[in-house]
Amino acid sequence: MKYEIVAEEGSAKSAHMETVHGVIETPVFMNVGTVGAIKGAVSSVDLKEIGCQVELSNTYHLHVRTGDRLIKQFGGLRKFMNWDRPILTDSGGFQVFSLASLRKIREEGVSFQSHIDGHRIFMGPEESMQIQSNLGSTIAMAFDECPPALAERSYIEQSTARTARWLKRCKAEMERLNSLEDTVNREQLLFGINQGGILEDVRIANAEEISELDLDGYAVGGLAVGESHEEMYRTLDAVVPHLPRKKPVYLMGVGTPLNIIEGVARGVDFFDCVYPSRNGRHGHVYTKHGKLNMFNKKYELDPLPIEEGCDCPACRNYSRAYIRHLLKAGEMLGLRLCTLHNLYFYNKMMSDIRTAIRSGTFEAYRREMNETLSEDKG
Amino acid sequence: MKYEIVAEEGSAKSAHMETVHGVIETPVFMNVGTVGAIKGAVSSVDLKEIGCQVELSNTYHLHVRTGDRLIKQFGGLRKFMNWDRPILTDSGGFQVFSLASLRKIREEGVSFQSHIDGHRIFMGPEESMQIQSNLGSTIAMAFDECPPALAERSYIEQSTARTARWLKRCKAEMERLNSLEDTVNREQLLFGINQGGILEDVRIANAEEISELDLDGYAVGGLAVGESHEEMYRTLDAVVPHLPRKKPVYLMGVGTPLNIIEGVARGVDFFDCVYPSRNGRHGHVYTKHGKLNMFNKKYELDPLPIEEGCDCPACRNYSRAYIRHLLKAGEMLGLRLCTLHNLYFYNKMMSDIRTAIRSGTFEAYRREMNETLSEDKG
Repeated sequence: MKYEIVAEEGSAKSAHMETVHGVIETPVFMNVGTVGAIKGAVSSVDLKEIGCQVELSNTYHLHVRTGDRLIKQFGGLRKFMNWDRPILTDSGGFQVFSLASLRKIREEGVSFQSHIDGHRIFMGPEESMQIQSNLGSTIAMAFDECPPALAERSYIEQSTARTARWLKRCKAEMERLNSLEDTVNREQLLFGINQGGILEDVRIANAEEISELDLDGYAVGGLAVGESHEEMYRTLDAVVPHLPRKKPVYLMGVGTPLNIIEGVARGVDFFDCVYPSRNGRHGHVYTKHGKLNMFNKKYELDPLPIEEGCDCPACRNYSRAYIRHLLKAGEMLGLRLCTLHNLYFYNKMMSDIRTAIRSGTFEAYRREMNETLSEDKG
Repeated sequence: MKYEIVAEEGSAKSAHMETVHGVIETPVFMNVGTVGAIKGAVSSVDLKEIGCQVELSNTYHLHVRTGDRLIKQFGGLRKFMNWDRPILTDSGGFQVFSLASLRKIREEGVSFQSHIDGHRIFMGPEESMQIQSNLGSTIAMAFDECPPALAERSYIEQSTARTARWLKRCKAEMERLNSLEDTVNREQLLFGINQGGILEDVRIANAEEISELDLDGYAVGGLAVGESHEEMYRTLDAVVPHLPRKKPVYLMGVGTPLNIIEGVARGVDFFDCVYPSRNGRHGHVYTKHGKLNMFNKKYELDPLPIEEGCDCPACRNYSRAYIRHLLKAGEMLGLRLCTLHNLYFYNKMMSDIRTAIRSGTFEAYRREMNETLSEDKG
């Protein structure tokens, strides 16, 4: 793996990253395909058309349904879903802590009940690496606990320390798996995850500790889970300078267009979020002037595309009036078109951000976007 | 409009039909987009990719939701849904008699309650023509009553006679509408509909009566509504010879692949049916060797496409195992891929049928398909 910063402006950076599955230009927004498919009937062929560089899939969902062992038999998730570009898999930790029930956390890992059929599953650092190795993603994420942002200090300290111990086990297990002959992707990368809620001292100490492990990249986890945007930005201001500048930085699960621009301004390379696809499925679409609710009666006779000048498959072919008609009639095609538009919007925004950083105009772009886009709760 | 038979084999015919919206090569299967969108998140752009020649939309659905007047303001349904090839609209009669409630049939027409919001609507021959004129379809269908195939003789006779009287009013109203300056498509074609249940004498007398009106085409309606396949074929054997050979013949709402082949063998040009899209949405897919249920566990590890050699967007890109995985996970993409495959299968079959008739091998093709495809209830 090669990660090379090609331009910087203030703390913002734009990098060229070469992986065994192709190049990633950062800052990048990963398009979320939970079970190896983007909700809203969007396929891997569509993802290429809308400019997606990295697809993100969820380890927990693929483990409890269909199963990573079966996917390994198909040569990994990229072959299974016919996506020849990079994939990042999360560790399963977030879903274990948010979806599964009857959880028991011990030093070894977590035992819990599947949210599908209730069967008992154990997942620790080694299991998470094994599943992600079976999926054969380009980038695996460390197994972590994501404590509530506003949990008590004592719990956050204890949890962060355990996640750091788990990280060392993840690294050892990933090295072992990458050395095996029948591993799908023997050059699988591992990103560590910084935790610590919004406690700056815990975040910084943890960042310094995990930076020493010399991993392929580092994520800031546990944000966008209940704290305010200001607390998120303050936490990033505090912790990102303590992560290696010359490695990719990933802000997990974030966020609105402005959140992403503010993350980029603080040195973040990777983002992912369900907002564009979830909003698309509710008929809420992004434009440079804020979100529109396509169910609104005022679009009944509107011949314009969702956004004038947009080159997405929805805007190239259909009017607001037609999309509203589909949504009102409950036609899946309406959700699909809104989702395609939103993902295209995010991917195009990232492309604009890269261009801005590489031409030294990012601060002007950031200012303009902060003026044009209204604050957005996602 | 020009309709020219380019090849015949027995009663089967293949024609080249030129309309104001483009050429239709027959026999043709029309892809059903109820409200101007194909269920299963299939767009007009997709329809082109899967070889659809004629899209079919439902007058009743478009009238009660969004509304034909609004669609007229967009320049008609073809512009509204961005489909530049021919469209056929049904008359609304079938839905009025199958979906709407509190119906009252009089000589003038039918009053009924909308199945969406219960508001009272009146539709007669003139109203149906006006709505279809607003939609601006290439081919409008006459307003008819479709009595249950097994209704009593006295009811079928009375209903068929009234439908014939309505047809004359449809013709007069269509001529009036086509002469107006602000009509969307001033060359809108009108197909009459033959009724009569499975009573051959009623069917034949009606066919002879309506043939005299010299319409642009003729449909056989009221089949595939409860009678057996044999009764359907016998009725076609009886009535099709009494419709003008040198005009397009349309068998409404039919059917399975074998139904279509048997219809073609009896001189039918046009078909439509919800089977391929409805089956697709249930994970049932067509192959040359019969239907497969993609939910079946035996496809869990199957790396083959739905059908080997198929050039549809699903088969070109995805395995049975992946499609099964999507269906099991409840991902809309699974339904979309199955629907795209099924519509492609039907369109490709029609292309094979045309090639067979034009090369004098239709009877061999028909025999082969009757041997290979098992009897299918749809």
